[in-house]
Amino acid sequence: MMNPNDIACSACKRKEAVFFRPYSGQRLCKKCFLESVEAKVRATITRYNMFSFSDKIAVAVSGGKDSLNLLQILAKIEHNRPKASIVALTVDEGIKGYRDEALKLASAECAKLGVDHRTVSFKKLFGFTLNELVEKKRQEADVKLTPCAYCGMLRRRALNLAAREICANKLATGHTLDDEAQTVLMNIFRGDVQRLAKEKPVTDKVHPNLVQRVKPFCEIPENESALYAYLKKTRFQSTPCPYAFEALRNDFRAMLNQMETKHAGTKFTIFNTLERLRPVLQTIPSDTNYADCVECGEPSSGGLCKVCQILREMSC
Amino acid sequence: MMNPNDIACSACKRKEAVFFRPYSGQRLCKKCFLESVEAKVRATITRYNMFSFSDKIAVAVSGGKDSLNLLQILAKIEHNRPKASIVALTVDEGIKGYRDEALKLASAECAKLGVDHRTVSFKKLFGFTLNELVEKKRQEADVKLTPCAYCGMLRRRALNLAAREICANKLATGHTLDDEAQTVLMNIFRGDVQRLAKEKPVTDKVHPNLVQRVKPFCEIPENESALYAYLKKTRFQSTPCPYAFEALRNDFRAMLNQMETKHAGTKFTIFNTLERLRPVLQTIPSDTNYADCVECGEPSSGGLCKVCQILREMSC
Repeated sequence: MMNPNDIACSACKRKEAVFFRPYSGQRLCKKCFLESVEAKVRATITRYNMFSFSDKIAVAVSGGKDSLNLLQILAKIEHNRPKASIVALTVDEGIKGYRDEALKLASAECAKLGVDHRTVSFKKLFGFTLNELVEKKRQEADVKLTPCAYCGMLRRRALNLAAREICANKLATGHTLDDEAQTVLMNIFRGDVQRLAKEKPVTDKVHPNLVQRVKPFCEIPENESALYAYLKKTRFQSTPCPYAFEALRNDFRAMLNQMETKHAGTKFTIFNTLERLRPVLQTIPSDTNYADCVECGEPSSGGLCKVCQILREMSC
Repeated sequence: MMNPNDIACSACKRKEAVFFRPYSGQRLCKKCFLESVEAKVRATITRYNMFSFSDKIAVAVSGGKDSLNLLQILAKIEHNRPKASIVALTVDEGIKGYRDEALKLASAECAKLGVDHRTVSFKKLFGFTLNELVEKKRQEADVKLTPCAYCGMLRRRALNLAAREICANKLATGHTLDDEAQTVLMNIFRGDVQRLAKEKPVTDKVHPNLVQRVKPFCEIPENESALYAYLKKTRFQSTPCPYAFEALRNDFRAMLNQMETKHAGTKFTIFNTLERLRPVLQTIPSDTNYADCVECGEPSSGGLCKVCQILREMSC
């Protein structure tokens, strides 16, 4: 029975609220909060027409809270679509003392959900781990990019190859509202109008060999994703990647969190501003003509793809 | 003679540098710095085709550094255009202990430059000072907007009326690069796509009674404007408006200054991102159909204009 001093859930009016959502003014109990997150993900999937009934969906699962939540919710949704199937993909970048734990957690969650789980490693695919790449770049004082930038390019390639190998036609990632709002700001701050136009909840089909990426969590704030995992008692990796502190993104994360605290709903507004600009952004002609990489045949924005450029640098 | 330990100006290679410009890597002596600011203003005027040879330009002069610098530079430029003329306009909002000093400084600078100077006061034009408006709103607990928001609407009207009275066809304001970059971010953070499209270095001619506004300082960073005034020994008002601490803009100013310190050139990049988006932003249909206010006949976005709405609230 509820203590009369407790505040009741705004949705069911019965149970004790465990969460206050500042941008909507709602107070929600555990059950209504979990349902509200799931409903929001379903609404995003519908709004952006992310899936069809017979999709084979590869879910990128890092072992962090966002991707494990996504896997759980997609497994639930796809349970009601017998013609659809999901497979979890985890990239092992080879980051000592970090990725091993995440791999175990991803594997355990997949076993629990009965979802097929594949791992693709940088070492097997490219011949070196991220640790080895960073070490070599530092030794040669050839640090053009942050570790996150190298990792991002290689990870995207690894996921795309793995998704294609299992004949997936969609690749779902756990990017949250925070990730999306940060990306909008980063592109504005660095003047990348092309990327501003390109980043969206469902990527365009720009090349037959690029599996279409979808982001069903793009309207879920990161703190709600954290609470969802906590309330579900999901075991996820919470230690950050040892390289993450070097990412430019951190500045934008801090800036956005500051603004969100002062003006609740800021992240949604930024996300929606972009969606409202979408019709005009679509008219910007792309500066990228996708072709096949002259070396590996994978999609490239011209000549040698970025991954082959990294591979060449590593073989010197 | 230069001390060999001093660093020479990157432009003239002779004099001692007094300023380092982080985003270009230049070190400039006093003379070359002043010239570089003036050259930049000339380039902005040309780039955006701000003036023609026979313009009558009203310059909004608050008494702060930016508008006094603008007045000096425009007076210099217009000196070579005998068919053009400039008049300085100062709005007296009636802010006790603040505006009086600014008025004297503006007046003194105009006398020095031989520029005609007009003052337009809220009290005479609307019947109340900003102090009185804020006081009434607070007493009635009817504080819908910040003092800056009210002041902005009334000041724009006052400047437009005064510019029209002297038959000016352009109204130049001292908005700096910082102001413009802050405005871009504010519009993105509050989701105002219409205003994002509307705010630009030269406003569109949306109504015959709205004097076209131009911002020749829109590519001058605020800290360079401050140094320009300092090196020119211009006496300007440096105490901030007593209401300014309430402005939402302060959050964006702090955010942008933080990012500029970390990544020199950020403000320019944001300004240029918008300029690059300009062609597609122009295709957004305006949600404002300018008509004549049913009460005062001045340009309005429909029915009663915002100024008449404030006047009605004040007469209750």
